[in-house]
Amino acid sequence: MKKYKFKIIPDQMLEEKFLIKVNKIETNFLEIRNLICSTFQSLENEFNLNRNLEKKNFSKKKWRRDNNKNEYGGGVSSILKGNLFEKVGVNISTVSGILPDDFKNKIKGASNDPRFFATGISVVAHMFSPFIPAAHYNSRFIVTQDAWFGGGCDLTPVYNEKIIKHKFHSLLKNFCDQYDKNFYNKYSKLCSEYFFLKHRNEERGVGGIFFDYLDANAIKNFNFTAETGSFFCSIFKDIIKKYQNKTWNLKHREKLLKKRSRYVEFNLLYDKGTTFGLKTNGNVDAILMSMPPIASWD
Amino acid sequence: MKKYKFKIIPDQMLEEKFLIKVNKIETNFLEIRNLICSTFQSLENEFNLNRNLEKKNFSKKKWRRDNNKNEYGGGVSSILKGNLFEKVGVNISTVSGILPDDFKNKIKGASNDPRFFATGISVVAHMFSPFIPAAHYNSRFIVTQDAWFGGGCDLTPVYNEKIIKHKFHSLLKNFCDQYDKNFYNKYSKLCSEYFFLKHRNEERGVGGIFFDYLDANAIKNFNFTAETGSFFCSIFKDIIKKYQNKTWNLKHREKLLKKRSRYVEFNLLYDKGTTFGLKTNGNVDAILMSMPPIASWD
Repeated sequence: MKKYKFKIIPDQMLEEKFLIKVNKIETNFLEIRNLICSTFQSLENEFNLNRNLEKKNFSKKKWRRDNNKNEYGGGVSSILKGNLFEKVGVNISTVSGILPDDFKNKIKGASNDPRFFATGISVVAHMFSPFIPAAHYNSRFIVTQDAWFGGGCDLTPVYNEKIIKHKFHSLLKNFCDQYDKNFYNKYSKLCSEYFFLKHRNEERGVGGIFFDYLDANAIKNFNFTAETGSFFCSIFKDIIKKYQNKTWNLKHREKLLKKRSRYVEFNLLYDKGTTFGLKTNGNVDAILMSMPPIASWD
Repeated sequence: MKKYKFKIIPDQMLEEKFLIKVNKIETNFLEIRNLICSTFQSLENEFNLNRNLEKKNFSKKKWRRDNNKNEYGGGVSSILKGNLFEKVGVNISTVSGILPDDFKNKIKGASNDPRFFATGISVVAHMFSPFIPAAHYNSRFIVTQDAWFGGGCDLTPVYNEKIIKHKFHSLLKNFCDQYDKNFYNKYSKLCSEYFFLKHRNEERGVGGIFFDYLDANAIKNFNFTAETGSFFCSIFKDIIKKYQNKTWNLKHREKLLKKRSRYVEFNLLYDKGTTFGLKTNGNVDAILMSMPPIASWD
């Protein structure tokens, strides 16, 4: 991966500050990106073949921030608009800069020194079939005067919500327990609280896990963050395989499109990543790649 | 119209404070609501008849706020999902309450005393034809320790933007000039600035007029606010008549759906009315009636 120069937080500071080298974190995120893209492309190809539809591939787009504005770094957005994946966006980015005044007090460790560094990966998949949940996964490593890992994954089904929720959460618990017996309870609760539409008094989906502010100097936290990506990839693959064959009609699609409008509302009204990105002059296409391809309101 | 009791700001205070009686303002807003609904229903009927489609009517829904939570008042939402109007929402409401702590400093005259009273009407029309612009109109009267009128109207065309913009603005100028020679310049500029998607560096539509904080004790300001409603109704009627016959295909619709996604982004990320409503525990269906029936993202 192309190395960027981070003039805001010196490379040297990043190198010396952490037990886990920043380079290692970035490389790990890149591996997860590659795993997810290749897994999703295989699924798209496999089920496309069954249906004899035109083959659709991921397309990649690089973007860079404007160094003249003290905005450094950039990223790669991979997007697939297919016949199984109606739209899936996979973003990977490493950026640095100075947080705007009205925002620095909202970011941990930035109130006295607004410089930041952030590297992360995020995935949002909206599926054609109303029977396959929308899926979201994200891992991030953020440096201000503090440094921490964050991330998580969650599902938004329209049908079979109870079954999917039960299975997903039992697998999540097994996964989390390998790292810390408190993780599942803590982070599944945080997830339900986070992905909540206050104005509608409803959750966005069936939850999952959401973690933030995990001390960047604990190997356990790095491993947990890193493995969330492959866990997500494997689980979502199984769900797709299970539900992809189920036939659906227009009524099912209409219900999916309504559900997606809540996804839009959440992301634009509440999502920290979206706000963070738009406020720090991030790449709009990359930030709003999470938007569904089509959504409807009553 | 049903009179509500406003325990937060006493009726008596509202009666005595203003040159123009609050009752008169509410009655005027109700007349505008009726004019707009009947005009739109006639247009829907007329062009429906030409096409032999099933006749669609406005449906009305009353809502009230929860007095037990010190939230008073309510409103009526009228919605038409037709064949000319894909979705048009007309809201009229009179509410009062106490602004939440994190919000009172953002509202004029509320930082020391967070009680508020607000009455208003708002209209958002999304049309089936990609050749008829989306249209928005709003009038409001707000009382805190200050009291003022606000409102405006604007258009969001997808095609013929230049022609529509030129004609609309020249009519707006004539309209504004009747009240104050400075109004058009001032409020068309404010409109362009307000309906602006900063993250995309683009305007929502072709603008119009947007005014706020007009002294509630000047008859001129009341008349201007009141007449904006009938002006909007007349102009939009003419535009509909002009463009309703123009044939369109799927490509045109796709472009319309993309444009609508910007409408969604604006309303959820920037719109003061939406934020005000959601933060003051307003009626969600009424607030989000402005959402398009269907929208798409790249």
